[in-house]
Amino acid sequence: MSEQKSIFFTPGPAALFPTVEEHYREAFRLHLGSISHRSAAFRKIYQHTVEQLRVLLNLPSSHAILFTGSATEIWERVLMNTVEHESFHLVNGSFSKKFFDFSKELHKFANVLQKPFGEGFDASEIEVPEYAELICCTANETSSGVQMRAAEIHKLKKANKNKFVVVDMVSSAPYPNLDYSLVDSSMFSVQKAFGMPAGLGVWIANEKMLAKAEQIKKHEGIVGTYHSLPSLWENYAKYETPETPNVMAIYVLGKVAEDMNKLGVENIRKDTDKKANMLYDFAKKSDQFDIFVENESHRSATVVVLNCKELAGKVIDRLKEQTGMVLGAGYGKMKETQIRIANFPAVDVNHVETLIEHLKK
Amino acid sequence: MSEQKSIFFTPGPAALFPTVEEHYREAFRLHLGSISHRSAAFRKIYQHTVEQLRVLLNLPSSHAILFTGSATEIWERVLMNTVEHESFHLVNGSFSKKFFDFSKELHKFANVLQKPFGEGFDASEIEVPEYAELICCTANETSSGVQMRAAEIHKLKKANKNKFVVVDMVSSAPYPNLDYSLVDSSMFSVQKAFGMPAGLGVWIANEKMLAKAEQIKKHEGIVGTYHSLPSLWENYAKYETPETPNVMAIYVLGKVAEDMNKLGVENIRKDTDKKANMLYDFAKKSDQFDIFVENESHRSATVVVLNCKELAGKVIDRLKEQTGMVLGAGYGKMKETQIRIANFPAVDVNHVETLIEHLKK
Repeated sequence: MSEQKSIFFTPGPAALFPTVEEHYREAFRLHLGSISHRSAAFRKIYQHTVEQLRVLLNLPSSHAILFTGSATEIWERVLMNTVEHESFHLVNGSFSKKFFDFSKELHKFANVLQKPFGEGFDASEIEVPEYAELICCTANETSSGVQMRAAEIHKLKKANKNKFVVVDMVSSAPYPNLDYSLVDSSMFSVQKAFGMPAGLGVWIANEKMLAKAEQIKKHEGIVGTYHSLPSLWENYAKYETPETPNVMAIYVLGKVAEDMNKLGVENIRKDTDKKANMLYDFAKKSDQFDIFVENESHRSATVVVLNCKELAGKVIDRLKEQTGMVLGAGYGKMKETQIRIANFPAVDVNHVETLIEHLKK
Repeated sequence: MSEQKSIFFTPGPAALFPTVEEHYREAFRLHLGSISHRSAAFRKIYQHTVEQLRVLLNLPSSHAILFTGSATEIWERVLMNTVEHESFHLVNGSFSKKFFDFSKELHKFANVLQKPFGEGFDASEIEVPEYAELICCTANETSSGVQMRAAEIHKLKKANKNKFVVVDMVSSAPYPNLDYSLVDSSMFSVQKAFGMPAGLGVWIANEKMLAKAEQIKKHEGIVGTYHSLPSLWENYAKYETPETPNVMAIYVLGKVAEDMNKLGVENIRKDTDKKANMLYDFAKKSDQFDIFVENESHRSATVVVLNCKELAGKVIDRLKEQTGMVLGAGYGKMKETQIRIANFPAVDVNHVETLIEHLKK
């Protein structure tokens, strides 16, 4: 644990959003560690966070915003609550594969379309199995730096209107501009692009999903207990939660969403594109680094993955020593050959410039 | 949300332990919001927290310490992972009843021995159904201020050696001096007697429970996914967690446990008894308040519940206005007739004295 001034480009947990620590200090001043989750003070906090996220993500009132311990938990909950028999998974990396594995562990019939690490999906090539109830997409596969563009996700839903579409936005929200008249559900966690300490998952789900969960329950299926969709929703309707939640994180998330709304989500998206282009342009011209994802339209804007000519560990160590900048290593088997650079809103354009200068050396 | 200096006697979320805010500040200085849960830095934190809790709770190496989002989650996980067919619940209040309800929601055959609100259990009167696999006890029923003494829990296990005993310590740990050669599992959350902001559950479970979970899995039962006992344990073995957890809370819990070990758990227990006696002695002599729990050996040391002659809301409002002291209201239907006073380690003996003086007025 180093106390030196570090700049984190790690893809999660990541650099803290600049205002986060001050929001936590304010949360302590307001005694948010001691208030009840059945109090008016808590309900006001939950409501504020919902209102700010609705603006940020352009979310209609048909969709609830529910809180869990992590986005990993939401993979489990969405499968338990909206899949009676069959799910369908687009798998192209470690995280989309885990989502697929969860379905099997829950004894669902899990269908899969699998692509090699580093490749992505377009709607036109996807044939959804007839009996699949839920289509699981990953907006940004954190392990490989591959994105599925919002437009492709929308096309997929239009071609499969009688099936639910859920979008894993863990390492991209609020970047993807999803149309929630088409997307039934999505999830993210706060330690990625929202730049907060970990410990809170955010689940967005619509009324049709709630109806499906109630139907599964009626058919004697098990949808879980306190964090079943009906239980979460019943509490959400009064801005409460079934259990004592991470109150401070719910408060801080609302404040960060408010800060992001002041910047404007369109500006955040433009800024993200600009920084991503700087990094990809640098790699194109470099003789030391290559862009890992070949298909340009599948390249992630929020997690840039580069192949390294020299050992990735050496690059990471050198950067850390010389500049205090902390890069992510390649995921799993790619640890020695790749670096991952998070391009979240907390990452400043000047830091990206400095990073590129040092990578050139 | 008031910014005035408040002293919380609420039974959870409760008064913060005096060192908590400074530990959070240090966590930010150490960049714990940005470190990976697969890093050496995180493993060191998990290990430290385990070591301090082992000392505090006198926990043998047969028992693992696992982290979840809440203690509520652990009710669900322990039932899914260690009950193939039948559970047995001692129910005498809202929280023990919820634990019982969870078992039914998970389609287990849930047996129950129910007592009226305000009454407690002794081992001698409990007959455990023959096929029950798990006996669910509540060391401290937060809603009614009734405790089940450690000695009674131990007797219960000795009379039922072939069954698991799990103890809900949510609003009492580290007060109950449990013998973990007898107790198979327990759980607590950090926003009660540990005086931390909510957002972390702590699950203690032994190797026999792990073996049972593996057996259920082998028999085609569903034990969950990332937070199944086998998955939690496999990660715990290397001081990691299946998902990105609430890293900061795990760090702060280790620090608070360390602070408590410096005070000495026996001193904390003596201090708790002393403060509880002060409150109960006051109520005995008062003509405005009565002790709710009649049987002295069932009276909680950590949550004192008193019947009020006048409306409880009036007492609570007056105290808040005059002194900044925040009392808990009675639970559910008892809201108008009872007050609940948390007697956690964060509550100072001087504050208890001042509280009693003001209650006398």
